[in-house]
Amino acid sequence: MKHTVYVVGIGPGGPAGMTAEARQVLDRCDCIIGYTTYIGLIKEEYSHKELLDTGMTKEADRCRLVIDKAREGKTVALVSSGDAGVYGMAGIMHEVAADCDDIDVVVVAGVTAACSGAALLGAPLTHDVCLISLSDLLTPWEVIEKRLRCAAEGDFVIVLYNPASKKRAGYLRKACQIILPYRPGNTPAGIVRHIGRDGETAEITTLTQLQDMVLDMFSTVFIGNSQTKVLKEKMVTPRGYVL
Amino acid sequence: MKHTVYVVGIGPGGPAGMTAEARQVLDRCDCIIGYTTYIGLIKEEYSHKELLDTGMTKEADRCRLVIDKAREGKTVALVSSGDAGVYGMAGIMHEVAADCDDIDVVVVAGVTAACSGAALLGAPLTHDVCLISLSDLLTPWEVIEKRLRCAAEGDFVIVLYNPASKKRAGYLRKACQIILPYRPGNTPAGIVRHIGRDGETAEITTLTQLQDMVLDMFSTVFIGNSQTKVLKEKMVTPRGYVL
Repeated sequence: MKHTVYVVGIGPGGPAGMTAEARQVLDRCDCIIGYTTYIGLIKEEYSHKELLDTGMTKEADRCRLVIDKAREGKTVALVSSGDAGVYGMAGIMHEVAADCDDIDVVVVAGVTAACSGAALLGAPLTHDVCLISLSDLLTPWEVIEKRLRCAAEGDFVIVLYNPASKKRAGYLRKACQIILPYRPGNTPAGIVRHIGRDGETAEITTLTQLQDMVLDMFSTVFIGNSQTKVLKEKMVTPRGYVL
Repeated sequence: MKHTVYVVGIGPGGPAGMTAEARQVLDRCDCIIGYTTYIGLIKEEYSHKELLDTGMTKEADRCRLVIDKAREGKTVALVSSGDAGVYGMAGIMHEVAADCDDIDVVVVAGVTAACSGAALLGAPLTHDVCLISLSDLLTPWEVIEKRLRCAAEGDFVIVLYNPASKKRAGYLRKACQIILPYRPGNTPAGIVRHIGRDGETAEITTLTQLQDMVLDMFSTVFIGNSQTKVLKEKMVTPRGYVL
C-alpha cells in the first residue's frame, strides 16, 4: 500500500503567513511532526491532533518517525517554518524516503524568510539574489566563504540565513569582511528578527555597521547590491524601470 | 491625510497558493490593480471589486494609478503573481511612492516561483541558491552573464526566472554554456511550467539537454549544484545531514 507524506512550509510565524493549501493539508492530517519551536507555532490551532516534536540535530529520526506514523495508516505532515524547501526538511525527507517504495513525498511550499523579511524591509530583492546560510554545522566554512565571495563579485543582493548562534559569534563579521572589498561600506543592509512572531523587528543599517551587530538564530540579514538604496526608511533595490 | 497602499504577492496560481494575510488584504480592498494575466487569476473570486488591469511595460503608470485611487479614498492593492518582492512590483511601487509623503507602501509576501517550483520538482533548493532573471529588458546581458558565471563558480543551485520569451530565444542555451565549464553535463536540471495553473508541468532533465529546450515566459528553470541528485524521479539537493 502506498502512503503519501506531506512536508509543509508554514510560513514565517502564525497562521496568517500560511497558504490556503498548507492549511488544507494540516487540517486533513492526523499527525503533525516538527522541530519543537515550529510545533509551538501551530500548537494552539491544532491541539486536537497528534503533535510530535523532536529537538534539533534529530532531523533523520524525525523523517523516520513520519514514515512510521504513515505506515500506521495516519495522514502525516512534517512542518518547517518558512518554506520547507529552503534550508528546511524537504530534502532530507526525500532522502530518507528514497529507499521506501511505499512512501510518496509531497512538498507544500511556503513563504521563506527571504521573502517575508524583504516585505518588512521594503523591496530589497527585486533584482538577482543569493541565499547563503552562515551555519557551518553541515557545510565547511571554506565553501561558505567562497560563496560569499562569488555572490559579492556578481553584485547579487545577499540574504544570510542563520547569521549567528551562540556557538558562531563572529561569523557575521567575517562574512561582512569578505563582502566589503566589493561593496562600499555605506551599502544598505537590513536585519529582520522574529518575522511574523512576537517581537518582530526590521532595522536598516549599513554594511560597515552590520559587522558589529550581535544577532541570534531568529535573525535574517539582507545586504544590498550596488543599486540598493534607502527610500523613506525602506530598503529598495530598483529593477531598472524608467519612472 | 495618509493612505496605505498594499503590494500583494498572490502566489503561483489560484487562491490555494495565497497566504491568509494576502487574502485578508484583498478581501478588504475596494480596488485591485495588476498586469492583465494576474488580474485574470483572481477575477472570478473578486468580480465584485473594482479590478483594473494594465499591460506589460506600463509598470510605473500602474503604480501611479494605485496612488490616484488611494487618494480618491479607496483601499487599493497592487498584485503580482508569486512574491511581489522577487522580480515583482514591490520595488517600483516604493520608488514611485518615494516622493509622496501621504502614501505608505505595505508589501505582503507570497510564495515565489523558486519555492513553488522547487516543491513540484522535489527539494532542489535545500542548499545555497541564486535567483537570476534572464530577461535583458532592464538589465544589460553582460551583467546577467557575469552573475551566471559567479553563481556557477560558487557552486550555487541556480534558479532562472524569465528563461525565455519570443524575442529571447537562445538565451537559455547561452546561460547553459556559461555554466557548463563549471558543472558536469549530467547535472540535474528541472523545468516547471504554469505552476499552480492549468497546464502545470514539472520535468527533470540534465544541464546538457536543457540547452536545447524551448521554453516560454511561464517557465522557471532549476540547475543543480555539485551535490544535487535525482531520487525516485525527484530533484534533491542534500543539505548534508547524516541519514
